[in-house]
Amino acid sequence: CISQDIDHILETQSALAVDLGGTNLRVAIVGMRGKIVKKYTQPNPKTFEARMQLMLKMCVDATRDAVSLNCRILGVGVSTGGRVNPQEGVVLHSTKLIQEWSSVDLRTPLSDALHLPVWVDNDGNCAALAEKKFGHGKGVENFVTVITGTGIGGGIIQNNELIHGTTFCAAELGHIIVSLEGPECSCGSRGCIEAYASGNALQREAKRLHDEDLLKVEGLNIKQAEPITAIHLINAARLGNNSADAVLNKACTALGMGIVNILHIVNPTLVILSGVLASYYHAPVQRIISERALQSAQNIKVLTSELEEPALLGAASMVLDYTTRRLL
Amino acid sequence: CISQDIDHILETQSALAVDLGGTNLRVAIVGMRGKIVKKYTQPNPKTFEARMQLMLKMCVDATRDAVSLNCRILGVGVSTGGRVNPQEGVVLHSTKLIQEWSSVDLRTPLSDALHLPVWVDNDGNCAALAEKKFGHGKGVENFVTVITGTGIGGGIIQNNELIHGTTFCAAELGHIIVSLEGPECSCGSRGCIEAYASGNALQREAKRLHDEDLLKVEGLNIKQAEPITAIHLINAARLGNNSADAVLNKACTALGMGIVNILHIVNPTLVILSGVLASYYHAPVQRIISERALQSAQNIKVLTSELEEPALLGAASMVLDYTTRRLL
Ligand SMILES: [Ca+2]
Ligand SMILES: [Ca+2]
Ligand SMILES: [Zn+2]
Ligand SMILES: [Zn+2]
Repeated sequence: CISQDIDHILETQSALAVDLGGTNLRVAIVGMRGKIVKKYTQPNPKTFEARMQLMLKMCVDATRDAVSLNCRILGVGVSTGGRVNPQEGVVLHSTKLIQEWSSVDLRTPLSDALHLPVWVDNDGNCAALAEKKFGHGKGVENFVTVITGTGIGGGIIQNNELIHGTTFCAAELGHIIVSLEGPECSCGSRGCIEAYASGNALQREAKRLHDEDLLKVEGLNIKQAEPITAIHLINAARLGNNSADAVLNKACTALGMGIVNILHIVNPTLVILSGVLASYYHAPVQRIISERALQSAQNIKVLTSELEEPALLGAASMVLDYTTRRLL
Repeated sequence: CISQDIDHILETQSALAVDLGGTNLRVAIVGMRGKIVKKYTQPNPKTFEARMQLMLKMCVDATRDAVSLNCRILGVGVSTGGRVNPQEGVVLHSTKLIQEWSSVDLRTPLSDALHLPVWVDNDGNCAALAEKKFGHGKGVENFVTVITGTGIGGGIIQNNELIHGTTFCAAELGHIIVSLEGPECSCGSRGCIEAYASGNALQREAKRLHDEDLLKVEGLNIKQAEPITAIHLINAARLGNNSADAVLNKACTALGMGIVNILHIVNPTLVILSGVLASYYHAPVQRIISERALQSAQNIKVLTSELEEPALLGAASMVLDYTTRRLL
């Protein structure tokens, strides 16, 4: 029976997904329907050679495991921090979080080692692809994913395709500027939403308040050696600390205005908030849109991502989508 | 000879272009190569009925003239202020500059009166189409037009097509926000680039300085009854007035940062500045891009439009492009 055959093919066909992040290097075997069959995690090495070597070894090991797991690996998808030329499979320019990661051809060594086709894109774009295939973006022609984690990134789907831009820096959503002056950003500019609302920015402000002895509030206990993070800031504000509240208010306003700018430029159907701070920012972003967006852009839906592994799933989707297109 | 026949067809085939602006209602017969064969201008009436009546009359007169001018009118293209649903040919929402201009079906009455196909889009999008067919945008897959006139508008070409957006408010470039606070905007928000850098914004600041007796500078003569405009502000700054210079500096920074935001969202190949203030803003915008954009977005070309009639040419191009596609 043909439909059973196709079902069986769909069950076994899988992708190897690689996620090169600031902290970890991860590899996963991902099934056609988005199931993560097996996942491997290692600290991301600090040097180019060690990183390439580890990535190749993890991939070779995973493809070996795939055989015994009855998974047929169709190709490799890589999600990485930094700016990527996906046509060439090359990382053009790294973020500061991943050292020695500029002008790196990932396709050639991976396809030489594994004899498989290789796709590469940046983490923000992969997160958008993951939403498109497995998340809130399913069936949505035009949407934007905004990821608020350590930094701020994102991806834009327009007419069912990613916008990469002429120099592959479209959807650099963290560097939308919302203030003529504003705090310094890691990119060298000032007033970017990443400098207001990213996990790093909130941590910077939390440390500043702590140093100035302004993070105190009844109910908040910070141990002597404990590193100060964004969570302390959020907790302090919830417990009634006005300084913390003011910092977070500004972060929410900045992020919301950045998203309003996205609405007024590409006018998507849907904005998906992703990353560790997504649920915290959800309500404030909706409020800022209702206050600051054009009337015609105010009914844009804002949702929080429900995907647990957007980078890995997006990396896998580059492989799986290509294969599905060939099958059909 | 076939090629002579095609040449002849191309010579005579023309579009009727309509431009509904804040001040004037204009109609033109436009040839296949962008030549404006004849142009008609009237003040744009303040009421819906008078405006529709005048528009239809001007179009009927023009089609009659076209016969004697040996122009074969293929269709009608309308450029209008406000938000437009181009699929339906309906003005959804007017700007304040054109009164009684919401939920207006332009296609039905025009096609009933003229028995011709009708296309409608907003002025910013028409300006982008004009650049695509006749201006700096020829052959460029991804570019953005930013129009700095009384207000600020624009259009975005992505993969050779306009981005209209889900609720037809993509490329509302005037309402990109670049300041958490900032001056009030006509849209009800604050800190939009239109509130800093449009002709209206500069006029507002010029009047304020004049009222505070701060617009004076040696060499600048303002007659008693003369209306104060952006030109006075620009001239005062050139003659060394520091207050005027500070206002203009802020306007340039705001506009430049708005354009940086466009670069970081859609990353076009080219930005075309259009409108009366385009050449004034050209150099400052390039400077702000080099100061505030990501390195990978800094080599984006910025050009000043050379088209004299972007709205009319864009309106015409909707007709001419459709016809060319059918011919080829
Ligand atoms: Ca991105
Ligand atoms: Ca527009
Ligand atoms: Zn930045
Ligand atoms: Zn505005």
